[in-house]
Amino acid sequence: MSYVAPLKDMLFVVNELADLAAVNALPGCEEATPETVEAVLEENAKFCGEVIAPLNVTGDRQPSSWQDGRVTTTPGFADAFRAFGEAGWQGVQHPTEFGGQGLPKLVATPCIEMLNSANLSFALCPLLTDGAIEALLTAGSDEQKETYLANLISGKWTGTMNLTEPQAGSDLALVRTRAVPQGDGSYKLFGTKIYITYGEHDMAENIVHLVLARTPDAPEGVKGISLFVVPKFLVNADGSLGARNDVHCVSIEHKLGIKASPTAVLQFGDHGGAIGTLVGEENRGLEYMFIMMNAARFAVGMQGVAVAERAYQKAVAYARERIQSRDLAGSAGPVAIIHHPDVRRMLMSMRAQTEAARALSYVTAAAYDAAHHATDEATQRANQAFYEYMVPIVKGWSTEMSIDVASTGVQVHGGMGFIEETGAAQYYRDARILPIYEGTTAIQANDLVGRKTARDGGAVAKAILAQVRATVDALEGQAGDDFVAIRKRLADAASALEDVVDFVAGNMKSDIKGVFAGSVPYLKMAGVVLGGWQMARAALAAGKRLEEGSGDAKFYQAKIGTARFYADHFLSQAPGSRDAIVSGSAGVLALAEDQF
Amino acid sequence: MSYVAPLKDMLFVVNELADLAAVNALPGCEEATPETVEAVLEENAKFCGEVIAPLNVTGDRQPSSWQDGRVTTTPGFADAFRAFGEAGWQGVQHPTEFGGQGLPKLVATPCIEMLNSANLSFALCPLLTDGAIEALLTAGSDEQKETYLANLISGKWTGTMNLTEPQAGSDLALVRTRAVPQGDGSYKLFGTKIYITYGEHDMAENIVHLVLARTPDAPEGVKGISLFVVPKFLVNADGSLGARNDVHCVSIEHKLGIKASPTAVLQFGDHGGAIGTLVGEENRGLEYMFIMMNAARFAVGMQGVAVAERAYQKAVAYARERIQSRDLAGSAGPVAIIHHPDVRRMLMSMRAQTEAARALSYVTAAAYDAAHHATDEATQRANQAFYEYMVPIVKGWSTEMSIDVASTGVQVHGGMGFIEETGAAQYYRDARILPIYEGTTAIQANDLVGRKTARDGGAVAKAILAQVRATVDALEGQAGDDFVAIRKRLADAASALEDVVDFVAGNMKSDIKGVFAGSVPYLKMAGVVLGGWQMARAALAAGKRLEEGSGDAKFYQAKIGTARFYADHFLSQAPGSRDAIVSGSAGVLALAEDQF
Repeated sequence: MSYVAPLKDMLFVVNELADLAAVNALPGCEEATPETVEAVLEENAKFCGEVIAPLNVTGDRQPSSWQDGRVTTTPGFADAFRAFGEAGWQGVQHPTEFGGQGLPKLVATPCIEMLNSANLSFALCPLLTDGAIEALLTAGSDEQKETYLANLISGKWTGTMNLTEPQAGSDLALVRTRAVPQGDGSYKLFGTKIYITYGEHDMAENIVHLVLARTPDAPEGVKGISLFVVPKFLVNADGSLGARNDVHCVSIEHKLGIKASPTAVLQFGDHGGAIGTLVGEENRGLEYMFIMMNAARFAVGMQGVAVAERAYQKAVAYARERIQSRDLAGSAGPVAIIHHPDVRRMLMSMRAQTEAARALSYVTAAAYDAAHHATDEATQRANQAFYEYMVPIVKGWSTEMSIDVASTGVQVHGGMGFIEETGAAQYYRDARILPIYEGTTAIQANDLVGRKTARDGGAVAKAILAQVRATVDALEGQAGDDFVAIRKRLADAASALEDVVDFVAGNMKSDIKGVFAGSVPYLKMAGVVLGGWQMARAALAAGKRLEEGSGDAKFYQAKIGTARFYADHFLSQAPGSRDAIVSGSAGVLALAEDQF
Repeated sequence: MSYVAPLKDMLFVVNELADLAAVNALPGCEEATPETVEAVLEENAKFCGEVIAPLNVTGDRQPSSWQDGRVTTTPGFADAFRAFGEAGWQGVQHPTEFGGQGLPKLVATPCIEMLNSANLSFALCPLLTDGAIEALLTAGSDEQKETYLANLISGKWTGTMNLTEPQAGSDLALVRTRAVPQGDGSYKLFGTKIYITYGEHDMAENIVHLVLARTPDAPEGVKGISLFVVPKFLVNADGSLGARNDVHCVSIEHKLGIKASPTAVLQFGDHGGAIGTLVGEENRGLEYMFIMMNAARFAVGMQGVAVAERAYQKAVAYARERIQSRDLAGSAGPVAIIHHPDVRRMLMSMRAQTEAARALSYVTAAAYDAAHHATDEATQRANQAFYEYMVPIVKGWSTEMSIDVASTGVQVHGGMGFIEETGAAQYYRDARILPIYEGTTAIQANDLVGRKTARDGGAVAKAILAQVRATVDALEGQAGDDFVAIRKRLADAASALEDVVDFVAGNMKSDIKGVFAGSVPYLKMAGVVLGGWQMARAALAAGKRLEEGSGDAKFYQAKIGTARFYADHFLSQAPGSRDAIVSGSAGVLALAEDQF
């Protein structure tokens, strides 16, 4: 198989680091027992490995194509999507009321990882559909929920998010699409939206577009944006499909990667107006969109973990089989390249970063569950704050990391890596979109710096750092070089991150450009340090199991070895990153525009 | 124009850092006066910008194609190559005796950079031809020189390097191609060579293959490899072309990038034997190949600089024109994204790394010239040692850097960067081969660790570090925050690099795997630190010009600002890299093969 889900690693994180037992104890999460979760993940792993993963290469070689407004997806995608819906996978995290499985985000998250490892392009359709479901659950009217949710959750219909316009990319204040009230409660929409993932396709009966637009009297800027639901086919009162709506796909993009995923230009209202209904209240569209964007950003972060995992698996397989050069310790003949120290270093780098990002994401998912299901408000609030701080990091850092991992995967293959038939290059191409869509890394970093750090004077960040220090303290009691090294690196890295938080919170008013000059380095550094925190926690948990003498000793030893690698090779960068952020703005801002 | 050669930057490096005046004073380099060099570079810039650069996108969209053993190159390539040869550009650095211009490597190097910025795929043909010329000059017989050199240097014929076989990539000990003596001084060759750049094409009348093969009684391993010259068409005594030789292109590869450059599988001897002649002595093939490989590795390092420069130019152009979001300092409306601090940081990162790698390469080229033309042996030896230490760094570091720069270039473009029509993605794809061919970064790092550092106990490295310290001392006298910061970062980075050199030299015997576990990190760190040394030298030179009040003040201020950026953002990484190398091997080697 081209992808085998790392179930043992996933379950280790779910149970030992993200504390499934605690999530399971929350009201509303009673179904998520360790046994059920294991069974769900096993089933999902089987489905993703057998049905979805084989379509990944097909999608790259036979991308979606456009003709006369219709998009034909890769052969096999429509059938696979039908099977996906029928097996209930679209509904894992959605309410049972509308046909979902109602499982916690901590359970949905590994499922999302697996689907994306299997096939990034395919997984985008469910990912965007999740966003549409989320938006309607949050802000939709009862009628809208009734009309759309069950069919979205069953995979009969799919959803999209329509934000970007040619002149409005990162800056949604520039959105120009118009929504004109018709007097009957409906609106007609007019405008052009670009980069609409699965904006048109042949995998479902209907497509439910969630669209940002302006009503006639809306104020300028982001406070005048409303959210509309605009279906491809209008829905009759009895739920059957009615007339074709006036939203049309005029082209799809020719992209570097994720070629099977159609990226549509959608034209609204060229033939009289696209009929839509308002979601929630007027002018609150951006607020609702942020709800679905937070979910989507988290999911894109998982795409980073997912493509990194798949690139790692491929590189390990090649390194085991490719025979080249003698062992440095002096073998008689050439050996598999996995024996060469630099190949080993590359594989460890891929593995360690992937594990760190996975652990941080799953722990973040568990915080989401606690924020939504805990019974006391203080616990809810603390977990919501943790979740919100982490979302830009999970999105920004995991996706930037995935480019590095995919690139290293190509390098492990040597010349073969550059040949498209090998397949390693696809991950390098596919991964490149991840730090761009759903908000570039700079946009994530703006969020982290502004809303998540400066606004509360760094309080949430400091609370998280206190948790990191508790892990440092716990490491103190552990014997052995590995734990000594991990403890030292984590302690130094945490101090460095604290310096950066102080810098950000302390200089936001006096030197805003200087702070934002270090925004992305801060985000990446936070990812490195907090990912390293999770690696240290993994080493502690593994050490405990080894002491108990329970389970697979080699597995737990590998956790400690990988944490050691991460500490020496990644946590060690944190002090240098601190220096670059705290004193690096002079260089960033040194040149005038005409000096470039 | 899609590429405008950064002539002012190039001349600054050539004159101020690589000391053209000193090179010009060497016997045999009298032609290379500052005025002549400037004129040559201007002419080359014009040719590359006008004739070669426009074919870059064409080559990506209409790659070379294969049919029935023939390769058709991209429309326009053959004409451009003819113009290239006729203008004398293939001969810049080659002896006047065979029709070359006989200019120093310091002059050829910016020409190579410009050609590669204009079009990596096109430039590979001259690059490999240079290698073949070099090999024949070094080890060819008078008859071989007579037969081949003038036509190679004029661009009438082209050359190739045939090393790799399916089972012999990085490990040339595994080469199996056979060379059977025919009793008349010629040999018949039998075997398969892969990844042969421009191994077949329609741009020249003849192709001169330099081929590694084994004679019947050759010892096993690398000491049994000989070098042969095998022309596509045999050459008659009068210099006219004779029979078609038995070397045939059976396919070309479908690659991630550099698609216009045909990467051939060549079959030697399937129809009776490919006729070749021995170059130099039997079993010394690897030694000769290393001569051309050193030249080729340096040139591939320049490809890294070149693609980084082009990606930077494209990103700057986009950042100036794309309007999005208000200025942080509070503009009324949206501004060009070059005003946003994170875009500024990305551009500075691209610019600073490109300038550092350019400076280090040109200085290395000047050392080559001194090694070959200085009159006293001590100067020759010192410069040869400097050159040899730098070649793996120029190759390995510049090319790894170029991936980062090209990736950042995509990021600057946001969603547009992922659309192939934009063109930024091509650099990201093209650059990916650079750390692989002509020896992967790991192979470069083996060279740096083994032959260039451990063998002499780190003596050459220490001598270079003494020069770095002299620059640190020179910085001491300079006033201003920028110079204070640059001095501190460079001093710390030099200490860190010295620790690593001591670690490598001191542990090679006792812990060879531990040393090689840090080989690539050592190479990259050496590049970062020595590139930073050149940036500091650039700042000093610029400071001197500013004091004198001569020249373009904004240009010199930008040199200081860019050096400051480099110091705070890249030199600051050196202590962390040191830690990862010196204490990082336990993690690299922690897992057994079955734990991956």
